[in-house]
Amino acid sequence: MAASVPSPSPADKFTFGLWTVGWQARDPFGDATRPALDPVDAVHGLAERGAYGVTFHDDDLIPFGSDEAAREQHIARFRKALDETGLRVPMVTTNLFTHPVFKDGAFTANDRGVRRFALRKVMRNLDLAAELGAHTYVFWGGREGAESDAAKDVRAALDRYREGLDLLASYVQDRGYDIRFAIEPKPNEPRGDILLPTIGHALAFINTLDHADMVGLNPEVGHEQMAGLNFVHGIAQALWHGKLFHIDLNGQRGAKFDQDLVFGHGDLLNAFFLVDLLENGAGGVPAYEGPRHFDYKPARTEDFTGVWESASANMRTYLLLKERAAAFRADPEVVEALAAARVGELAQTTLASGESYADLLADRSAFEEFDVDAAAERGAGFVRLNQLAVEHLLGAR
Amino acid sequence: MAASVPSPSPADKFTFGLWTVGWQARDPFGDATRPALDPVDAVHGLAERGAYGVTFHDDDLIPFGSDEAAREQHIARFRKALDETGLRVPMVTTNLFTHPVFKDGAFTANDRGVRRFALRKVMRNLDLAAELGAHTYVFWGGREGAESDAAKDVRAALDRYREGLDLLASYVQDRGYDIRFAIEPKPNEPRGDILLPTIGHALAFINTLDHADMVGLNPEVGHEQMAGLNFVHGIAQALWHGKLFHIDLNGQRGAKFDQDLVFGHGDLLNAFFLVDLLENGAGGVPAYEGPRHFDYKPARTEDFTGVWESASANMRTYLLLKERAAAFRADPEVVEALAAARVGELAQTTLASGESYADLLADRSAFEEFDVDAAAERGAGFVRLNQLAVEHLLGAR
Amino acid sequence: MAASVPSPSPADKFTFGLWTVGWQARDPFGDATRPALDPVDAVHGLAERGAYGVTFHDDDLIPFGSDEAAREQHIARFRKALDETGLRVPMVTTNLFTHPVFKDGAFTANDRGVRRFALRKVMRNLDLAAELGAHTYVFWGGREGAESDAAKDVRAALDRYREGLDLLASYVQDRGYDIRFAIEPKPNEPRGDILLPTIGHALAFINTLDHADMVGLNPEVGHEQMAGLNFVHGIAQALWHGKLFHIDLNGQRGAKFDQDLVFGHGDLLNAFFLVDLLENGAGGVPAYEGPRHFDYKPARTEDFTGVWESASANMRTYLLLKERAAAFRADPEVVEALAAARVGELAQTTLASGESYADLLADRSAFEEFDVDAAAERGAGFVRLNQLAVEHLLGAR
Amino acid sequence: MAASVPSPSPADKFTFGLWTVGWQARDPFGDATRPALDPVDAVHGLAERGAYGVTFHDDDLIPFGSDEAAREQHIARFRKALDETGLRVPMVTTNLFTHPVFKDGAFTANDRGVRRFALRKVMRNLDLAAELGAHTYVFWGGREGAESDAAKDVRAALDRYREGLDLLASYVQDRGYDIRFAIEPKPNEPRGDILLPTIGHALAFINTLDHADMVGLNPEVGHEQMAGLNFVHGIAQALWHGKLFHIDLNGQRGAKFDQDLVFGHGDLLNAFFLVDLLENGAGGVPAYEGPRHFDYKPARTEDFTGVWESASANMRTYLLLKERAAAFRADPEVVEALAAARVGELAQTTLASGESYADLLADRSAFEEFDVDAAAERGAGFVRLNQLAVEHLLGAR
Repeated sequence: MAASVPSPSPADKFTFGLWTVGWQARDPFGDATRPALDPVDAVHGLAERGAYGVTFHDDDLIPFGSDEAAREQHIARFRKALDETGLRVPMVTTNLFTHPVFKDGAFTANDRGVRRFALRKVMRNLDLAAELGAHTYVFWGGREGAESDAAKDVRAALDRYREGLDLLASYVQDRGYDIRFAIEPKPNEPRGDILLPTIGHALAFINTLDHADMVGLNPEVGHEQMAGLNFVHGIAQALWHGKLFHIDLNGQRGAKFDQDLVFGHGDLLNAFFLVDLLENGAGGVPAYEGPRHFDYKPARTEDFTGVWESASANMRTYLLLKERAAAFRADPEVVEALAAARVGELAQTTLASGESYADLLADRSAFEEFDVDAAAERGAGFVRLNQLAVEHLLGAR
Repeated sequence: MAASVPSPSPADKFTFGLWTVGWQARDPFGDATRPALDPVDAVHGLAERGAYGVTFHDDDLIPFGSDEAAREQHIARFRKALDETGLRVPMVTTNLFTHPVFKDGAFTANDRGVRRFALRKVMRNLDLAAELGAHTYVFWGGREGAESDAAKDVRAALDRYREGLDLLASYVQDRGYDIRFAIEPKPNEPRGDILLPTIGHALAFINTLDHADMVGLNPEVGHEQMAGLNFVHGIAQALWHGKLFHIDLNGQRGAKFDQDLVFGHGDLLNAFFLVDLLENGAGGVPAYEGPRHFDYKPARTEDFTGVWESASANMRTYLLLKERAAAFRADPEVVEALAAARVGELAQTTLASGESYADLLADRSAFEEFDVDAAAERGAGFVRLNQLAVEHLLGAR
Repeated sequence: MAASVPSPSPADKFTFGLWTVGWQARDPFGDATRPALDPVDAVHGLAERGAYGVTFHDDDLIPFGSDEAAREQHIARFRKALDETGLRVPMVTTNLFTHPVFKDGAFTANDRGVRRFALRKVMRNLDLAAELGAHTYVFWGGREGAESDAAKDVRAALDRYREGLDLLASYVQDRGYDIRFAIEPKPNEPRGDILLPTIGHALAFINTLDHADMVGLNPEVGHEQMAGLNFVHGIAQALWHGKLFHIDLNGQRGAKFDQDLVFGHGDLLNAFFLVDLLENGAGGVPAYEGPRHFDYKPARTEDFTGVWESASANMRTYLLLKERAAAFRADPEVVEALAAARVGELAQTTLASGESYADLLADRSAFEEFDVDAAAERGAGFVRLNQLAVEHLLGAR
Repeated sequence: MAASVPSPSPADKFTFGLWTVGWQARDPFGDATRPALDPVDAVHGLAERGAYGVTFHDDDLIPFGSDEAAREQHIARFRKALDETGLRVPMVTTNLFTHPVFKDGAFTANDRGVRRFALRKVMRNLDLAAELGAHTYVFWGGREGAESDAAKDVRAALDRYREGLDLLASYVQDRGYDIRFAIEPKPNEPRGDILLPTIGHALAFINTLDHADMVGLNPEVGHEQMAGLNFVHGIAQALWHGKLFHIDLNGQRGAKFDQDLVFGHGDLLNAFFLVDLLENGAGGVPAYEGPRHFDYKPARTEDFTGVWESASANMRTYLLLKERAAAFRADPEVVEALAAARVGELAQTTLASGESYADLLADRSAFEEFDVDAAAERGAGFVRLNQLAVEHLLGAR
């Protein structure tokens, strides 16, 4: 049977990092299996496959240590490719992890000189991000962490992290850049433990910033799943705080090294509910309007044919899940099962409108005369609902 | 759209433990949410839903400590239900974990009296298993383990484990029972660490038994996944050793407590490849012919309606995955992709027929003149293959 | 050699839950191995062993469903024991998880009636907490979660969670109780996924509350470690936010079921750094002044002799670690190694006092002339520091 | 206080891989932070610090693709360093993972040409191993695995794995080399799932080999702990099967990427029990006589000073744990507690000498008259024992 898979188009807002299709597949135990991919070729390749945009770390585009002339040339070639293809650059970020100077972190390195260098590296790249029209700037603090609890004063580190972000936010505001920051949490790897390890830790940290309003999150599927956390729950909480500024889609198979698989090649059921939340989470319309950004790595076993097939695979699976989620929500049996499971009832306030705790205390039906056993016996109907989701996911309904 | 889900029938060989639909939903933090389910009702309920058979621990059927008269009555009622429904009892097992006497294990308890008691408990139930026509007897040593490495001499424990199984195997053989043993590994819970924690450890142990031929495995999806292991790989290795005697199907969401979810409600992609291996793994025909046994727990939130829906959900998902796997194997594009990925080439011996290592040493094309770079550059085509599987799983092909 | 282990005294502020020494050792696969422990006996037993206080869930003291007369009698007997022993009740909490009525949660149950009942149950127990002089009231939302992403609207659930805590905080304030709230995060078990799964998620949530100032955290060692997170990092972040209101000490061996081992019987090195942080974290004086609360379970293998030995073991290990940490901090070689590792340098602001980002941009030594290679080559000296900690922990220095 | 840490000497049989102190600290997100270490310098550095021997992969000593002349020169320089220092080469292994040609594995690559090349690479290095006097040859199949279950026929892969080892074993025997093989299991990384993921799986596999007697294991601390398995249990089972041919000591902090920390910098309590088992496990004398091999990575933050300090740290901690374990075993209170916990009783056979199962069946005291309740109530005394271990570990006894 011919595949009934929808084709991606820029309207779907799919974006990819230069470092994804461009990953040379060097891993802790192996050398590169693919040559470097010219960013210009990356742009064209993504555009041909229906992507909306491309993102990058400074060093993806301009090798670390390039002089000003080389820098301008790299940027010019990239801009030309963007112009030719119409690809957008919705997000930019900084590489604060590859060079050995960042081996103990960037904003939170014990070495103050490194911290200052890191801030400058970001500032320079913020200018470029603004120039290219990016509206989101991601901070992944992959080296902000430690292997020994004796070696890092975590509270001082959080002070420095805050100092750095406050300074950079002021810079962006003063320059008038239309850019928001998005922190990307990760529990570990490459450091033994990374600061702001989960969506929650980063959300809490953001609340302490001078310009908290312009700072949100860029959660990544695999990063939360490495800690065994439910990504859908994490995204829901991020949305609840109004902080889902960007999202990194990929796949991971449990608590192990960071796999960066193709989206859907990890926990497929969770991916289904994620797409459902993003696309239908605001009463049937999208709860998130930003780019659907794939931060994955084409497997080390693949050549460039495989690289491009893997890029397309991310988009195809997303679109299929979107279709399945729409059908799930439209199915009258699902609607009925949701009602039976009282899912909507949770949107009702626990106290009635105008009811005070004194009223609640006075309501004998709430406690003294509440039929605990009857309430305890009622089946919740959750398994039926989950099975309906599975059957929709499998395309069987 | 009406669901296009096939209906289970006894020919599908679906079986369930009495302790599954009968689970009262007591958990470490909560009391039972459901009343006891009469085994007779369990038998009828399963039969009505298309199951092939039912399995049990001795204490599921006959409460611990029942006298002989009560015991006979419980068995008689159960037999009657079996006769009325045609349900089979392909497997039986022993409860060596609920009663406090087994708090430090059964065959490997430090207390020798407990070990002797445990052997007797099994022997009595082996007689019943034979009487009911079971051909598989499962050993889940959930209490064989430790929380402190000082408290358990693991090598002595393995000696006692072996002693116990050797004795029981002799007993079965001498009695002429047509029964094989199947060990069910688990890494932890309820003990901090359980002996024979994975498929591999149990396979190795079996090799040391006097009657190794009659002892195989009963692997459970969730148990391997609790250790982050790939269940499909584990089953493949068990098949390779000729030791897949029985299988426990359920769902688990990573390295956490033992969830015993409905089959497919955990790692759905792995479930797909599992069904593919079981059903098509021997050159397109089933690699495993035994019961498809669901060892799951209906969620604690459910009443009996939910219990029975969850029982059906296991079977429906299995059948859907079987259909999807068949379509995957039949798809010419998949056949071509498998060839491109050289999957079949791995079945060719590395040395040619009759070739010796001396011949290999003499073959300059194998080493001195082997084009390492060309081989390194070739793409493996694995991501494409995985994506084809995902799209089949989603019913999109 | 006689043990050189210091003896606990009330000045050490060790506290235990009634449900710890009183745990009857019922687990998902086994029945109770110990009889119930009378709370009065628990109080006396703890006092004799040097504890400072005792804590409880309402139902630990007053069985669910007791009438008013029985309730008063339970409280009176408990008060008498407190008076006789001088034991304090620094913390109280609510059981919102054992009874089947809470099978889908309490404040976030889909069933509104259950939510109202839960609030009333807490209000009643808050009165008792105030009466007994408790200053901390813990909220562990063990049933606030889901197994299926379809069954729980996480954002609505967070709304209801907030509604509940806002209401209860108002109640406490209006009554003039000198009580603060402490949320206890946990990633999973008994629910497949629990809301507010980590320290971070709970901190973020607290920021949204009406009375955020009176709400902090009660983190538990094992709960963070179940998600593979570094507990010391988590506690440091909680302290940084001023939210370490209470702490639950125990042991856990990685990403598995909730073990509630004796403190130090899990990750001992992390326990060392934890005690160091708590005791010496504010420039050599304690960073946390509240109770050192053990929330552990005496192993199911133990009788009451073992129960009490395990209670003492928690305190002995804490005191030993406190001694080791003091010696570590006092060791001149450690002081030197900390300086060499620039640990203190992280407390210096990255920008000089009065320096603006414009100044930083103008500082060529920070970027254009920064000797990246020299900074990259400098060894951090972290492994030496960690080894010094290990050797102090082992009592070898 | 001056450290009372014993100094390592060759009699302690500590060995290190060239790739450990020589690791340049390239990780998935970062470039090398240290220059290459000349193997000659590694040999001298290790010898100066009291090591007994050094081990290597072929490519550690002789860069991949070296011509014959270069090869001989590398070997000659290395031999000279060995002669000068007296360092031994007890173990050698093959690099079948760094070069891209092995991206889909070596013995189990789908590409038959790669498989043949791999066998030749091993054969050449076996000759060198024999020449240098190594008695153990390690096989770590880090690339033998898959990311997609569709891409690897696991049973065919196990056939090829076996074919490869059978051929190589024949080669070793025919040449008369005094070499045994040791398989090193690992669950994942760099592949998504690796074949023979645990000690157990490898033990089971070995049983199927033509020359099973000459094949055993080289288990690594971190590899088992990545799967949440108890390393002490795994080593005990390996010893029980007579298959602990070699051991890799290091540290790991739970289910995450492969950390290769210094020995003791991970789970210290498990490390204590491991040393106790190795050193005292055969009735107070060593259960394992081979090299204590450290397979760790000096943290990426360190320069060469830190590298050498980390190398020494491994040995110091091992020796400290050995002292602590000896004291633990010699402590009369521990001896008494072990007896109370009936640890030795597990060495007694469950059946008396000469007793048959018929005798057991006839023994009414074993079942019909067994006092189940009395046995259930007896406390096991395990927590006390564990606490004694903790206090010895802390040097407090």
